[in-house]
Amino acid sequence: MNYFSSDFKLGILGGGQLGKMLLYETRKFDIYTLVLDPSNEAPCKIACNEFFQGDLMDFDTVYQFGKKTDVLTIEIENVNIDALEQLEKEGKTVYPSAKTLKTIQNKAKQKLFYVDNNIPTADFTRFAYPDEMLTAIKNESLSFPFVWKSARFGYDGQGVKVIKTYSDLEGLPKAECIAEKMIPFKNELAVIVSRDPKGNVKTYPVVEMEFHPEANQVEYVICPARIDENVAKKAQLVALKVSQAYQHIGLLAVEMFQTQNDEILVNEVAPRPHNSGHYSIEASYTNQFEQHIRAILGLPLGATESKVAGIMVNLVGAEDYTGPVVYKNIEKIMDMEGVTPHIYGKRETRPFRKMGHVTIVNPNVNEARKTAELVKKSIKVIAEN
Amino acid sequence: MNYFSSDFKLGILGGGQLGKMLLYETRKFDIYTLVLDPSNEAPCKIACNEFFQGDLMDFDTVYQFGKKTDVLTIEIENVNIDALEQLEKEGKTVYPSAKTLKTIQNKAKQKLFYVDNNIPTADFTRFAYPDEMLTAIKNESLSFPFVWKSARFGYDGQGVKVIKTYSDLEGLPKAECIAEKMIPFKNELAVIVSRDPKGNVKTYPVVEMEFHPEANQVEYVICPARIDENVAKKAQLVALKVSQAYQHIGLLAVEMFQTQNDEILVNEVAPRPHNSGHYSIEASYTNQFEQHIRAILGLPLGATESKVAGIMVNLVGAEDYTGPVVYKNIEKIMDMEGVTPHIYGKRETRPFRKMGHVTIVNPNVNEARKTAELVKKSIKVIAEN
Repeated sequence: MNYFSSDFKLGILGGGQLGKMLLYETRKFDIYTLVLDPSNEAPCKIACNEFFQGDLMDFDTVYQFGKKTDVLTIEIENVNIDALEQLEKEGKTVYPSAKTLKTIQNKAKQKLFYVDNNIPTADFTRFAYPDEMLTAIKNESLSFPFVWKSARFGYDGQGVKVIKTYSDLEGLPKAECIAEKMIPFKNELAVIVSRDPKGNVKTYPVVEMEFHPEANQVEYVICPARIDENVAKKAQLVALKVSQAYQHIGLLAVEMFQTQNDEILVNEVAPRPHNSGHYSIEASYTNQFEQHIRAILGLPLGATESKVAGIMVNLVGAEDYTGPVVYKNIEKIMDMEGVTPHIYGKRETRPFRKMGHVTIVNPNVNEARKTAELVKKSIKVIAEN
Repeated sequence: MNYFSSDFKLGILGGGQLGKMLLYETRKFDIYTLVLDPSNEAPCKIACNEFFQGDLMDFDTVYQFGKKTDVLTIEIENVNIDALEQLEKEGKTVYPSAKTLKTIQNKAKQKLFYVDNNIPTADFTRFAYPDEMLTAIKNESLSFPFVWKSARFGYDGQGVKVIKTYSDLEGLPKAECIAEKMIPFKNELAVIVSRDPKGNVKTYPVVEMEFHPEANQVEYVICPARIDENVAKKAQLVALKVSQAYQHIGLLAVEMFQTQNDEILVNEVAPRPHNSGHYSIEASYTNQFEQHIRAILGLPLGATESKVAGIMVNLVGAEDYTGPVVYKNIEKIMDMEGVTPHIYGKRETRPFRKMGHVTIVNPNVNEARKTAELVKKSIKVIAEN
């Protein structure tokens, strides 16, 4: 197939910020793109060839959209899987596959998948409702503290809560969930694996993630992770194993814990470009978005090494502001060496809303880390008075 | 002014490939953009917020378009200057300025400007018509060989011809022109200078350009230039002097000759992002398109250093092919380390038509050069059978 002609059509389910960054790369290769998103104000609208407004969870909408495309991919996991299965049956190329998405969409299924495939992950129990947790606690088959995770639709700290007492259980959605053992980890790590239809694989370096303690959102992503080389190798091997277990095609971001004993436990995965790979736009030989396109189209995978160290800082709305957004001191951070802001173009800010990200690059990771801290201290995402 | 809100509008005259690459960067900063171009199929159409079809040489079209914007810039020099002057009179911000564009649009004026400002340039004579050259040759005030350059609308080897005999003079357009002394140069060099409204300046490294002998188009752009450090410094100083003489705001690409005696002579300039800076997308801390936006908006200028060495190869249509384009062996070059193709999306190829470019990056410039040659030997821009 000649991708570099308008006879070929790439479809993307979801038109958000990840999709927009993916579309930049399709423009570089002049790949014709179709996007489906429920919002008529979707960020992707400006960068795709054809935009369709519609419900990503509706069978018919997704099915009809998919029929228009040659290869179908996603920028968000919550899409109608039955439609994807039907499209696959009819011979359409869908990456990631319906099967992979089905497993990943549900955190309980995802965890069971790791167990079935001998992939190390934190111990957990599956429950139909949070009330069943209460029974388990009373029966002493579950004890505080543990991590409650909603099986479905968790995103960016939503659907995850540390449960220390009975009162923490109050108000949890009455839906399928898991109780996961709390891991007193040294580090949270992530590895992005790219894998093409022939099974060729290239792994990005291990990144280290620091979370904002309150918002439970990633605050810094540091590449390369400042960890022992053997631990890094182990993390990459685990990530590869996960990718192979899923027979995944495209990008798979594997989030992991490094335990106190330097064990690696898989936390969760995202079958697409991921926040933990944004640093790659400025730092890597091939950025994650370009690599995803290369992988799903069966083009040669690009080099995943870094030109320089990269750190990403998420730009989230300051705690006390809601309203039309102002990026206070953005000019100050743009005056720092190797600092590039990415503004997502959301009109309104609210506490902890993801409004953009900033990449800091430097040949030396420790220098980059210093600048990243200055960036973090300088820029504030606030609202107009 | 808050650029990072949709209250601010950046206008771009011209909607070609350079504009498209500029628009990628406006998306990163979420800057609202308007584009004017005569073609309804302009590459920019897919990436701007509002697209207007219209004649760039028509006073009223350019004037009315400019009125809609807060800051106006160009991606092509051939626009209606009177309209820009009128907009400036009314207080509109236009970068580059009408005055600068007026001088640069006309190669005779541009050369006189260098003479007036003590900027080294090859000796030349201005003529109203090529016929006047004949008279000059007969009078022995001009002698073969020399370089004929059309004063207006030269682009990519158009409007430039080496004149060795009387017959070379045949068929030249009957328009203002210059006869320039042929410079037996060691190297063709270029330096991109970025300058903001306050006069802050940052200079990109010197690049070395190799031209295709027949098509008179750049074949390789090599950064850093493999030249003596003192020559590089001299070239940068000359470029700075040119930028200051123009009081230029935005990017100024200064093309220069390095003579056999290591003198630097200014050839010509482009007051915008330029083919000689495409390598910066992959190689530089701040790519030229982002830097142009930073400069014209008065945002802090980014670092102009390179992360790695970069070489750009222009993808031009192979000599014997005209028709629907095919990028033969594109997958082969994508399999080489550090190679990124940029496809401009033109449907039809013809001999020497600029269809895209490829960037090759590597920590070592000589390694990059080897890969660049492999790229050049592998990829062919041909037409469908």
